[in-house]
Formats: sequence, C-alpha cells, structure tokens
Amino acid sequence: MKFGGTSVADIGRIRNVAQHVKREVDAGNEVAVVVSAMSGKTNELVGWAREMAPLHDAREYDTIVATGEQVTVGLLSIELQRIGIQARSWLGWQIPIRTDGAHAAARIQEIDGSELIRRFGEGQVAVIAGFQGLAPDNRITTLGRGGSDTSAVAIAAAVHADRCDIYTDVDGVYTTDPRIVAKARKIDKISYEEMLEMASLGAKVLQTRSVELAMVHRVRLQVRSSFEAPDASLNDDGSKNYFPGTLVCDEEEIVEQQVVSGIAYSKDEAKITLVKVEDKPGVAARIFGPLADNSINVDMIVQNVSDDGQSTDMTFTVPQAELARAEDIIQKVRQDISAREVRTDTNVVKVSIIGIGMRSHAGVAKTMFKTLADKGINIQAITTSEIKVSVLISSEYTELAVRALHTAYGLDAE
Amino acid sequence: MKFGGTSVADIGRIRNVAQHVKREVDAGNEVAVVVSAMSGKTNELVGWAREMAPLHDAREYDTIVATGEQVTVGLLSIELQRIGIQARSWLGWQIPIRTDGAHAAARIQEIDGSELIRRFGEGQVAVIAGFQGLAPDNRITTLGRGGSDTSAVAIAAAVHADRCDIYTDVDGVYTTDPRIVAKARKIDKISYEEMLEMASLGAKVLQTRSVELAMVHRVRLQVRSSFEAPDASLNDDGSKNYFPGTLVCDEEEIVEQQVVSGIAYSKDEAKITLVKVEDKPGVAARIFGPLADNSINVDMIVQNVSDDGQSTDMTFTVPQAELARAEDIIQKVRQDISAREVRTDTNVVKVSIIGIGMRSHAGVAKTMFKTLADKGINIQAITTSEIKVSVLISSEYTELAVRALHTAYGLDAE
Repeated sequence: MKFGGTSVADIGRIRNVAQHVKREVDAGNEVAVVVSAMSGKTNELVGWAREMAPLHDAREYDTIVATGEQVTVGLLSIELQRIGIQARSWLGWQIPIRTDGAHAAARIQEIDGSELIRRFGEGQVAVIAGFQGLAPDNRITTLGRGGSDTSAVAIAAAVHADRCDIYTDVDGVYTTDPRIVAKARKIDKISYEEMLEMASLGAKVLQTRSVELAMVHRVRLQVRSSFEAPDASLNDDGSKNYFPGTLVCDEEEIVEQQVVSGIAYSKDEAKITLVKVEDKPGVAARIFGPLADNSINVDMIVQNVSDDGQSTDMTFTVPQAELARAEDIIQKVRQDISAREVRTDTNVVKVSIIGIGMRSHAGVAKTMFKTLADKGINIQAITTSEIKVSVLISSEYTELAVRALHTAYGLDAE
Repeated sequence: MKFGGTSVADIGRIRNVAQHVKREVDAGNEVAVVVSAMSGKTNELVGWAREMAPLHDAREYDTIVATGEQVTVGLLSIELQRIGIQARSWLGWQIPIRTDGAHAAARIQEIDGSELIRRFGEGQVAVIAGFQGLAPDNRITTLGRGGSDTSAVAIAAAVHADRCDIYTDVDGVYTTDPRIVAKARKIDKISYEEMLEMASLGAKVLQTRSVELAMVHRVRLQVRSSFEAPDASLNDDGSKNYFPGTLVCDEEEIVEQQVVSGIAYSKDEAKITLVKVEDKPGVAARIFGPLADNSINVDMIVQNVSDDGQSTDMTFTVPQAELARAEDIIQKVRQDISAREVRTDTNVVKVSIIGIGMRSHAGVAKTMFKTLADKGINIQAITTSEIKVSVLISSEYTELAVRALHTAYGLDAE
C-alpha cells in the first residue's frame, strides 16, 4: 500500500490511512505500507535548502529532505499500534533500500526483502519511508520527486507482493482526462505498456518510472482512492471481478481488450521549425547532434521537401522547458546548415491514442486522421509506436480533438 | 563546538553559526560542530507524536524527533560549503554514535572517532547531529532533552579535542544567578567538580550529565555566548590568559582558587516532616526503603529527638515534582511507624555554597551559618559534601540569603 502526501497531510488523515491498513490486516493480508512526507513538508524543506544556498550539495539536500518521510513513518506506526496493529517504521538505510550515488535523483539498485518477510510472518506491518534510500557511501539518497511510487513498486517486488496498491486523490485511471471529457470512463484493467504510454503522454496518475519498474518485475499495480471509505470491500477473488480502482497488469490478464484504451494529451510541447534548410546528406546530424549532446529530448520530427527541390523545412518538437536552450543551440548551427529562419511555437499540443489492440488491428491511425480532418483540425506532425499514435495540433483544438477521438474509438460512457 | 536550538533557530542564525565555525577554521583549528534542532522544532515533533497517541512507542518517537537535528546539520553543511569551507553532515547512525537501547533517554556507549579524525586531516569540518545515536537493534535513539551537550562532550572525547566549546545564550558561568545578584561575576575557570555541583544545584547553563562525562574523559569545556561577534579573538595561549567565556577544567589548571566559587539555589525542593515517629531501630529503613523502591530521590534528612525521648520528628526533602507520589507512599507506611502526622511544605529553597577550596579551609560552613543567622534566617536542614554546604530555608529569604552569602565569601564584583 502506498499513500502520497495529501493522504498523510495531517494527524486526522494519517489516522484514516491506518484504517485502510487495518482493513487489509483484518482481511488476513500481510502488509507493507509506503508513505510520503506530509503534504507541504517537502516543499518547506526544499525551500530552506535553497534559501541557504541556491546551488547546494545534493547529499546534504537529501539528508534534509528525507526527514519528511521519516516523520510520517513514525507517526503512522504510532497510530497503527494505538489501534492494536503490530507495526514498525523502516527508513531507507535500515532495510536497506540500496540506490546508486546519484543524489536527489537516485535509482534503486537492490532491496533485500527477507527481514520484512520474516516479520510479516510474525504479524508485523512494515511502515516504510518512501522516496529515500542508501547510497554506496552510506549517505541518504532521495529518488527525486514522485519517487515514493517507485519505492512502493520496488518494495512490492522485493517482498513478492501479490499487488501494489497506489492510493491517490483520484479513484483510478480514466480513458482520458475527465476534466475535459465528461464521458470519460474509469478503466478497470490496463496493461503495463499502455499505462506507460499514458503516463509518459501526460496522464499524471502514476510516475512513468514506477510503471516501468512494475512492468519489469511484473508487479500488479492498483490505482485507487485514499478518500474512499476505509472499510469498503476489497475482495479481488475473480468470481466478483471487483476492482475498486484500476489494475495495471500483464496484458494476458485483460480479457476484453479494447483496440484503443485511452486518449492522452500533453501541452508540454514546443515546436521548432527550420525554414529552407539545405537538402543534403548530414544536415539532420548537424541539427540533432548538438541537441542530443546537450541532453535535449527531441520527440517528433517532420521534413518537408520545398518547391525548389534544393531546400527543405525541418520541424521538430522539444519539451517546453527546454525550448530556450534548444533555440540557442539551433541559432548557433543555423549558418552552418544555411537555414533561412528559425521559428518556434509553443501553441501546440500532442494528442495520442493508446492501445495494445493496435498491434493486431489495421486502420486505427486512419480513423484518427479522418476524425481530426472532419473537425477541420490540421495535423502538424505525427509520431507512432507499436501501441500509440501521436499527432501535433494547434493547442486551441485540444478539447475538440480529444472529445472527438474519445467518441470515435467507442470510449464514451453510456 | 556545540550550538543549541536558539543558536540555529532560523536561516539567519545558522549563517551566524557558520561564521563562528569559519573563525575557528581560519585560525587553523580542526573542527567538529554539534547542533540541536531549530528552536521549536523538537516541541512540534513531540507534539505530533503525543497527539497521535499519548502513550507511544519510544522507538517511533525517537525516529520522529531525531529529524529535527537532521535538518539542521544539512542546512549548516550547505552554508559552510557556500562560504568556502569543506564540510559534511553526520547523523548518529552514520558515525555511528552507539548508545544503549533506552529509547528517548539513551546513554552513549561508544563512538569511534577515527573516520572523523581522518577527515579533519583532509580539512573537512564534521557537522554532527546532536541528541541522537544508534541502538544495538539498528534503530535511532535520542538522548533525552538537553542531550546535545552530552553528544558534544562525547564527540570531543572521541576525537581527542583540545576543547569543547558549548555556545549558549549566556556568556559564561556566574558566581551566582545574575538576575538576583547584580554583583554576580563571570567565572573564568571552574573545576569539573564545582561545575557539577553548580549544575545539579540549579545553575542551568550546562546539563549535569555532560559535565560528568567531561570530567570522566577530562574534556575541557568552554561555556560561551553564540551571540558574541563571530570574529572575536579566541586566543587561549596562556600568555594572555584570555577566555571569552568560562572554562570548565581540571582543578590543577586553576591557579587562583577561591575558597567558595559560587552560590547556587534551587526552588525545586519540597519538605516532608513526619511528626512523632517511634524512635527505634529500623524506622529510617521503613520510611526511605519504599521511596527508593519507587525511584524517589531523597536529598536532605534531619532527625530531631523530641521532648519525651521516645519519639522523634523526621524531616527530609524530595524534588517538588515527586511530592505527590512521595506523600502517597509515606501515608501508606505512616501507621506502621506510628507517625502522628505527615506535614509537607513546598515553600522552601535550598541554598548552597560551592568551592573546592573547602577541602583545605576550615570554618567555611561557620561563615555561612553566621551570615544567615545575622539576617535572621532560620536553617531547616543542612547537607554537606566535600566541596559544598547546602541549607534549606524558607523560600521568601532566597534573594536575601544568596546576596548576603555572595558578599560574605568575597564574590561581589567591584
């Protein structure tokens, strides 16, 4: 069970979390519960470190920031004991959760779950500080923002858990953003691959890294709400096929597979167009080489042959946060590739359809293009993978496009 | 160097502490600095634990409360690095500071200072979380309130420090409480034994336990103010004999030894009188045995033979906080020892004169009794040790008695 910052924001909410844990224990389950810092605490701690010095030692930053989760595990353990449940807190260095030495953005390398498993056998609940680990030099690391999900999945793998329940402030994963599509439906089951695309394409329910990790270790992830009544039935016995949230699992476990499972969109895109670039070998390398060298991720790329046949327009997208740096780099190589002009546009959105069913169904992309064309929406770039198709369109069409596609692929709730 | 909670209360004060450290580093010293939690933080953390459950697991309490110091060491290390000083934070479990398993009131058992010493050699300042350690079961312990002084002394011993500077909100140890005696003088040097008596008799500058530890390990302790200008000269080279605060040291190091070094008083006393107790063998054991069994410290004891020669009045003192428990216990044995009545009085104060010189000077106590008699102050009980004489008097005479004794022993500042 994993609970984020808003679920443990104060004493009252920590008591609520304890009731969720109690329900699972009462049902005969062995439980490890991973918690974040009380909402706002991490920001306060980060704020102090920044005020002390804007550029600071990441090892000291980690030492400071890791205290947020340390407080929560202690408080939750006290509350569990108060309501009669054996529990003890575990810090990253106590288990230990071994990570690499990349402070403030560490990656988990190894967790020995044997001591936790031994204590499950004695009826003890493990209350584990998320977001933190132990570096090879015996100092505290943090996993970077949102890392508690990753902690939970890694712990679930280490103790061979049947399921990893991620409690959030939403009750599951939806076919698309319910804030813009009223007919969005909660998805009962979704495959790791699809969830990974949804997460990386803008659905904020789960961190991409935690889904990747779950996929690698085949940890069944359940997204559910921490605000539901803690005593709600949780039977997951097949006969009832009842899931309170969304189960992220192996595709084999999903019986009725949709062709398209969800529609995602991301406004975090910026478009760069190089006008009238020389059309000769090596141009692309001279453009994208320097961007890669500076760790700027280029996503979509389109090359148009111009009328004169000697020059071409080159369009590509980068994350909006990287636009200024990318533009700087491109301006430096502009002369070299004889580009007439560099144009940028942040008024774009990437809309994607995602579904494992695409692998075996032809014509899925065609439906997308036709749906958008029917609404008069111009496609500026396209990128595809085995299980998704993404298009770049003008951002003013976001809602229109997402709603139309949601209907076109039969995802609307009745 | 040790700085308490008020000295690291906010970002600005932590920067000030860093300047104190810089001064020592610039003077060519190797420095370990022990810090407490930011003032108010420990109370906040303790408050949360109590709100969660009034009776809670001390191991979880320690996990929560130890975060206060963890934040401070990170922030101070960041600030030291910012101003160009090599520094790193050390938590109790990282050094480790090994303690026993008495959570929330643990005692330090062993510190291996070799790694800290190795890093001093590389020019690195050790920034150490006070008040915390590691229990044999690999869980965090805290040393109980005021434990950061103890941490500092223990670290000083482990790294064979020349001196342990305890920075406080006063500029040293005074001959008596300056709030009630305007002519109180700051003491330049005081012996461990005297300081121990001063501390246990009410002078709040240092924790008794830290002075004991300093005495055992012969750590020279200097009490000084964290609010003095950080760039004040600190030469301690004998020729100038200049100490900014009070040095607590071996008596051999003190050249001009006063007969009486200080006057202490404690209002934390309560008097219990058993009226007309049977005067026969075994009575004292039947009174004080049960008190000892209940861990109640009895301090002064006076026995008066009554007129009839068959009964006696027995008077003794206990800490005021223990009075109710002590009275309960005494009421239970009253019948057994045929005491007519049990009287209690909290309107008393214990005034003490302290000085190593007493060992070799006769008539020191006589001066005390005469001085008090001249002021018409009745002495209700007396207790002595090799280097102190304490009397119990009515608390309304506190100021009068302390001032008169301060003058009588030649302690008044000119």
